Amino acid sequence: MRIGLIGTGTIGGGVVEILETKAAQYREKLGINLELACICAKSDEEVAPYKAKGYKTTTDAMTMIADPTIDVVVELAGGYEMPRKWITTALENKKHIVTANKAMLAKYGHEVFPLAEKNNCHVLFEAAVGGGIPIIRSMQEGFVGSEVEQLSCIINGTCNYILSRMGESGMSFEDALKEAQLNGFAERNPTFDIEGVDSAHKTAILSSLCSGKYVDFEKIHVTGVAKITAEDISNAKELGYKIKLLGIYRRGEDGAVDARVHPCLVPNDHLLASVDGVINAVYLHCDNLGQTLQTGAGAGRLPTASAVVADLVSLARSTDTGSRKPLPMGWFNKENAAKLVPISETSSRYYLRFTTKDSFGVLASITGIFSQNEISIESIIQKDVKDPGKVSIVVISECTKESKMLTALEAIDSLSSVSEKSQMIRFLK
Amino acid sequence: MRIGLIGTGTIGGGVVEILETKAAQYREKLGINLELACICAKSDEEVAPYKAKGYKTTTDAMTMIADPTIDVVVELAGGYEMPRKWITTALENKKHIVTANKAMLAKYGHEVFPLAEKNNCHVLFEAAVGGGIPIIRSMQEGFVGSEVEQLSCIINGTCNYILSRMGESGMSFEDALKEAQLNGFAERNPTFDIEGVDSAHKTAILSSLCSGKYVDFEKIHVTGVAKITAEDISNAKELGYKIKLLGIYRRGEDGAVDARVHPCLVPNDHLLASVDGVINAVYLHCDNLGQTLQTGAGAGRLPTASAVVADLVSLARSTDTGSRKPLPMGWFNKENAAKLVPISETSSRYYLRFTTKDSFGVLASITGIFSQNEISIESIIQKDVKDPGKVSIVVISECTKESKMLTALEAIDSLSSVSEKSQMIRFLK
Repeated sequence: MRIGLIGTGTIGGGVVEILETKAAQYREKLGINLELACICAKSDEEVAPYKAKGYKTTTDAMTMIADPTIDVVVELAGGYEMPRKWITTALENKKHIVTANKAMLAKYGHEVFPLAEKNNCHVLFEAAVGGGIPIIRSMQEGFVGSEVEQLSCIINGTCNYILSRMGESGMSFEDALKEAQLNGFAERNPTFDIEGVDSAHKTAILSSLCSGKYVDFEKIHVTGVAKITAEDISNAKELGYKIKLLGIYRRGEDGAVDARVHPCLVPNDHLLASVDGVINAVYLHCDNLGQTLQTGAGAGRLPTASAVVADLVSLARSTDTGSRKPLPMGWFNKENAAKLVPISETSSRYYLRFTTKDSFGVLASITGIFSQNEISIESIIQKDVKDPGKVSIVVISECTKESKMLTALEAIDSLSSVSEKSQMIRFLK
Repeated sequence: MRIGLIGTGTIGGGVVEILETKAAQYREKLGINLELACICAKSDEEVAPYKAKGYKTTTDAMTMIADPTIDVVVELAGGYEMPRKWITTALENKKHIVTANKAMLAKYGHEVFPLAEKNNCHVLFEAAVGGGIPIIRSMQEGFVGSEVEQLSCIINGTCNYILSRMGESGMSFEDALKEAQLNGFAERNPTFDIEGVDSAHKTAILSSLCSGKYVDFEKIHVTGVAKITAEDISNAKELGYKIKLLGIYRRGEDGAVDARVHPCLVPNDHLLASVDGVINAVYLHCDNLGQTLQTGAGAGRLPTASAVVADLVSLARSTDTGSRKPLPMGWFNKENAAKLVPISETSSRYYLRFTTKDSFGVLASITGIFSQNEISIESIIQKDVKDPGKVSIVVISECTKESKMLTALEAIDSLSSVSEKSQMIRFLK
């Protein structure tokens, strides 16, 4: 199998490294031949080290893609538009695809997968979600005897690192972010991660796999982690919870899909609560299988490259010896779009934190508003007053419909004695 | 794909149930046709309910296996000799195999897999290890870009339930076993589970997958859980550990294999420590991938049946549309046997508990023997004396070669002031 590789960054470099050490073993043990036929990057500088090692290199991806001797294109460049063009052209040229590009798949999967099906080509993307965790393969093959009812996942290492560090040390969000950047766990511009966009891409892909329907990542509810304060983390800890940014899928009624990304209070005895640092985890509740959890490195050079190589091996085993038919990706076809449950229609228990100017009359006003909106309160915690002009009141609600809660919060936020916008974090059940 | 099913017990019944609900979906979504062509069980009584539903049934497995219209034999009967005969005959008749029979695979895999290779047939066994956890598929495909350096697994739900309950409640081994039996988590004759034989079967299979070599389950060291006392559990808890029965694989030097099954003290902050009850878990440390953990239901009707059905779907996707070549199972070929590291050559930290008649002179004797054997002691805990004739002394050793430790323990056990055989439990790390 002749491979054309696009991208020589962190993951691309890792793929070359693994193939150099393992290709002989695959040939000997599995009888498959993974040949790195051409390496493509943006500039001569980037391809130079590979050229020096004797690889055929190019800076012109489209010419490589047109080469009839290339069997599979490995796209590890990142971004949306160029990868879309490369991949669709490669598929039209009957080449298989291996990619780690969750952003492109979440945005253009509805174009890529039908085209792949039409051309009887495979598109493998184990590395796109959860790095080294073989979750795509598990969902497409291992769990096929069961239906996913609920999925909750920690799939952004940057956010999980920040929240874990805040929990361990009591530091602020800003300080934890700085530390993450210093340690190479956050980008210099971390918006994409901390706003939850990366998690939304991955959650959309996983929700599509769960439901068998197209889930548009732009339509799922996303709240990032930037507004989580040290106080929220510490309050959660006192209650026996950790705050985690979760990607969530729930099977709704009549095949509807409840997919979303937001911080959650996870009880300490839940398996996801002990997943700390840059580790990723996918927790599933399935009808026949029951509960399963897979954890592992969510990012990083060799874990992700190793997932790409596993896809290449799968592909070679499928195509060298006849043709294992690609999986039909009806779930990524726009015509098969999921009916999404609006976040306003979902229900949760809520952690609410109000910042008020004094602590006397305001409590009566707040509880009055909850009562008017028929929201039951499980507990109220008034924290020690350090700054008399800035009193924190924490309220835990019973399970409430989100639309009701939002109405109540709007009323509370407009009280003159409430000095900051209220904080609202959902409980994971 | 026409399926012949042998065994209508818990798992077999579950497979029929899942196929009844999902076969139409597989046909529609994956374009594969899973047809339950014949159901075989030991007696007319056992097949009667299936006959009544309109299935073709038989009590004669060999005739079913000879039927040229059957494409795959699903063996869910259990035991060693009959399954061996059915499976080898089926392979000679060019039929694929799906089985959950770890005992037979551990014992006769070296016969079954070469025969399968010769006949270009698949033998799939996802359900044999870890029930609903897709660990076999992950190791054969998902982790192929990486090499396993260490594996530690909890793969016997009965033992893990007993040890978990002892830890939660302080109850004795005997009481926890009784409770497990009452709840259906232990067999009436639980020897096979509590002596670690079931774990050894599974550990041998996983170690073979890790090393690519044949690991003979009869040659790996096995210690069960029957000698773990409430006192050991409570001492471990005080030290910040849980006691778990682990299956262990370590990559040794020069390709040697260190495979074993024994109780271990697992630190509370290790992911395996929070795997309680009948849940199974496989923890891997790989060169490229780093650490991963997979947990899930290790047994039970639908989780295990769901793994069998996943194998059937894989098989149908591989064989309906050409021929995806079966994985070469060189790792299960006797000629490719692993050099096993003898347990005496391994090193651990050890938890040791001595029962002595008095607490005065004996401590000096014990520490003297350790000193003579050049064993360093990390800490000594002398428990409150309740019965003056039966004093417990707990010693934690530093990392020590097992052969040295055994020599010391033999000398200690022969002291006249030591009244019971000493307890020795290894630390994980």
